[in-house]
Amino acid sequence: MSVPVLLVLEADPPPRLGGLTGRADVRYADARSLASELPGADALLVWDFTSDAVRLAWPGSGPRPRWVHTPSAGVDRLLCPELSASDTVLTNARGIFEQPIAEYVAALVLTMAKDLPGTLELQRQRRWRHRESLPVAGGRAVVVGAGPIGLAIAGTLRALGLEVAVTGRTARPGVHGSEELDGLLARADWVVCAAPLTEATRGMFDARRFSLMRPSAHFVNVGRGALVVEDDLVPALTGRRIAGAALDVFEEEPLAPDSRLWDVPGLIVSPHMSGDTVGWRDRLGEQFVELFDLWSAGKPLPNVVDKERGYVPSHDS
Amino acid sequence: MSVPVLLVLEADPPPRLGGLTGRADVRYADARSLASELPGADALLVWDFTSDAVRLAWPGSGPRPRWVHTPSAGVDRLLCPELSASDTVLTNARGIFEQPIAEYVAALVLTMAKDLPGTLELQRQRRWRHRESLPVAGGRAVVVGAGPIGLAIAGTLRALGLEVAVTGRTARPGVHGSEELDGLLARADWVVCAAPLTEATRGMFDARRFSLMRPSAHFVNVGRGALVVEDDLVPALTGRRIAGAALDVFEEEPLAPDSRLWDVPGLIVSPHMSGDTVGWRDRLGEQFVELFDLWSAGKPLPNVVDKERGYVPSHDS
Repeated sequence: MSVPVLLVLEADPPPRLGGLTGRADVRYADARSLASELPGADALLVWDFTSDAVRLAWPGSGPRPRWVHTPSAGVDRLLCPELSASDTVLTNARGIFEQPIAEYVAALVLTMAKDLPGTLELQRQRRWRHRESLPVAGGRAVVVGAGPIGLAIAGTLRALGLEVAVTGRTARPGVHGSEELDGLLARADWVVCAAPLTEATRGMFDARRFSLMRPSAHFVNVGRGALVVEDDLVPALTGRRIAGAALDVFEEEPLAPDSRLWDVPGLIVSPHMSGDTVGWRDRLGEQFVELFDLWSAGKPLPNVVDKERGYVPSHDS
Repeated sequence: MSVPVLLVLEADPPPRLGGLTGRADVRYADARSLASELPGADALLVWDFTSDAVRLAWPGSGPRPRWVHTPSAGVDRLLCPELSASDTVLTNARGIFEQPIAEYVAALVLTMAKDLPGTLELQRQRRWRHRESLPVAGGRAVVVGAGPIGLAIAGTLRALGLEVAVTGRTARPGVHGSEELDGLLARADWVVCAAPLTEATRGMFDARRFSLMRPSAHFVNVGRGALVVEDDLVPALTGRRIAGAALDVFEEEPLAPDSRLWDVPGLIVSPHMSGDTVGWRDRLGEQFVELFDLWSAGKPLPNVVDKERGYVPSHDS
């Protein structure tokens, strides 16, 4: 009996896939070989989820895998019209990144409130300079993005005593629709972007939206870099139209050494690491094997992405 | 009708005391004049609570104020045997610093877990270097100090998903006795010191206790500097016997520019600011006026310090 061909976009074997031995014909591809390997694959694991290779190779000719899994939350890098229009099932890593990202956002919010960057800079200078910091509890936050990551962020910020509003594409219980975002931004102390990158959300944080925020407001982006118009964020910070920001994601990653973003006053730059706690690759590998077991048994898969919307729809939307 | 003499240890009038006009004869003293002013004072507001002047001046001759208030949580700087033995009522600022300090500790814990100091240093160097960070939820913390500040810290850490044990001098419901501390230290990922400084607690974090901790553990001190033997903490960090530490308080404050503590690897140094959020001085002034109203009406005061123990006893202890 033949086993399905599992194509893995990655040079080195991912961890925790040993359980597939004998149950899958595992092959490896890189960006150059992907196009020629795709027609022979039954399933595709996009282990290198930072690659554009799938989006570029998919529109070619020949059969296509019936199932594609990306060990990431966002699917923006691999979606293309041909994949969206196909019958191929696309799944993501829902369940892995929520809690780590929520903690990372809490770390950024508290760090900015307590001015730990200022403290560390003064420590470097061996200077003792007492300052007053900001309270967090009792403040207001807006979380943009009503998927499981946005909801986890909201839960953690509420646990810290913040009043949190969540916005999504459309309103549902506990979630404000996108038409309410502008009004919420004007009242927020903290604005957290955790939206999927789609044609509807690209560049949503632009000069107009930064101008709606309060001069005391802080902005955090843990979604995708292209949700923010970086050319608009920089003057919002240098002109003190908002009080501070932290970006974990960027229009181009890795951020180039000569990017001006590295030293914008009031901006914290981190290297797309918000969801990656020790052992994350193992957990992604284990999750894939669980999905493979369901798929090879012909059972329904969880975490199925709505390829038109560009994210996994919430159960109650 | 004569009004009581309120002596204030401070050069400049504290905020929010305008409501005392006509109800108190407010006089100001500094460290040099305090001894001569004390005999004529009915009440003493130790606005400059970082001063040693009260402890030095109190043992002198003559009458003493019947009430002393310190706008701080700790009373270690002003207590002396003569004050402890007297009938003078000593009150503190219970209620003001709990939430800010709890948030500050959460900021430090999350900052260390997510290695934001490393991120900020890499940002300074314009280097994009992805790292894996530590999860917070599911970890174990020990909070040393079962007063309202310790309990607030425990509450906030629990809200972040940590399993938290609190230790105090003696066991009571929800609080472990000091005899359990060593065993708890050996299991903790996070050790937070928020104890009062008394003869029983001075130097309690010494080489022996650091050696009990796990190599992966982090230590935070927001209590008083002298709770920690700094000479023992430094080798614990440089020898990697613990993973990191953050000190907001020091044996000598301000920390001298040539202190070796400024650049110990893995040590965050902040200038005794954990409780001081915007408006804190106003809140301390308002709190004093509330206490003054009770005192001048002959009513019982809250926040009364047990001068033998050196802190305000918990209601349920």
